[in-house]
Amino acid sequence: MTEFLRNALPFWESLTDAEKGMLLSGARLQSYEMGSVYDRGGNECAGVEIVKSGRARVYISSPNGRELTLYRLYDGDFCMMSVACMLKNINFSISIKMETACEIVRLSRESYKKLLDTSLTVKNFTMELIASKFTDVMWLFEQTVFSNMDSRIAGALMERSAMDGSKIIEITHEKIAADLGTAREVVTRQVKKFQLEGLISMSRGKIEILDEKTLIGKII
Amino acid sequence: MTEFLRNALPFWESLTDAEKGMLLSGARLQSYEMGSVYDRGGNECAGVEIVKSGRARVYISSPNGRELTLYRLYDGDFCMMSVACMLKNINFSISIKMETACEIVRLSRESYKKLLDTSLTVKNFTMELIASKFTDVMWLFEQTVFSNMDSRIAGALMERSAMDGSKIIEITHEKIAADLGTAREVVTRQVKKFQLEGLISMSRGKIEILDEKTLIGKII
Repeated sequence: MTEFLRNALPFWESLTDAEKGMLLSGARLQSYEMGSVYDRGGNECAGVEIVKSGRARVYISSPNGRELTLYRLYDGDFCMMSVACMLKNINFSISIKMETACEIVRLSRESYKKLLDTSLTVKNFTMELIASKFTDVMWLFEQTVFSNMDSRIAGALMERSAMDGSKIIEITHEKIAADLGTAREVVTRQVKKFQLEGLISMSRGKIEILDEKTLIGKII
Repeated sequence: MTEFLRNALPFWESLTDAEKGMLLSGARLQSYEMGSVYDRGGNECAGVEIVKSGRARVYISSPNGRELTLYRLYDGDFCMMSVACMLKNINFSISIKMETACEIVRLSRESYKKLLDTSLTVKNFTMELIASKFTDVMWLFEQTVFSNMDSRIAGALMERSAMDGSKIIEITHEKIAADLGTAREVVTRQVKKFQLEGLISMSRGKIEILDEKTLIGKII
């Protein structure tokens, strides 16, 4: 655990031995099954979560079940929203879905909060973490509002292809829709257009990317 | 100026006399004409701006000229993005349009940055400011993605009515579209529906709200 925290926390070396001991004694490794879903933010205060291995999708959802992916967490990433309960003025909720089996290290709320209240370094790190996520979300907001659906779906296909390391991606129109915060029908209409243009070919639950260059060219 | 800063800065009393003097000597009152537009964020580093009087609209825009209002600033509000250049990891841009003549107090970048680097109180205040704007933007993001256009336009009309303190509001379809990040045609279509339903009546550049209760009921 010491080794993991040394790598995961940029402020580790600036801590006193007592502070390191406090964080370590409050740290727990937890395993999550693929597909499991958790809510974070709002009243939830789970402590600070860091992905040790796996891939998780962070998203918002509407009362009628529409979803929009904010970002994905990979090895070493902080779940920023798990820090939120320690901060005043952040009170929105997000959900996390484990897209693979995940191992997550959780630092206890008490131990992190103590550091946050006393250390300017930890405070800086936390502020920069939030600032960075704010920037990500603003970028996504702009894309969502201002970009055309063909650009956004082309982007989603290329992202998925990079994620899987393959030009043949196993994905349903529903999942693309949930990434983009749109309806399945909208995705179906657009990927059919891409197929007619010869950019992709579709079969049951799979999409093959045929013309990567033109597809990338559609992303604004 | 001392009186204004005492009220505007919650951390004022926690500052030493030297720190107060430093902020004061770097503070300037500037007047802006109604309608003037400024960019903030990105490479822009104007210092910390606080609205003394007036109303300003903070928005993002697309390369092809579409706009979406993030929030409005009123007396005493901080322009959060003017702080951004002092923080790592925030690098998105916004624009500010003065919707009335505005008086804005600007604290020099150097003086605020010094406080930010040394005072946990100022750091906390700044972090909470960003967290609060992050929450606002996430709420707006959810509305923009998940709410129907009739709900959003009803909300925009009611907000404008509250802003003007009148049931007769002077606004064009273009301005509503720029608030909501949509096209003018979409607004025109929806307000015509509202007119057919007897909720509003329209005349040149003016909209009168006839049935406030039903209009509010449309806001989800």
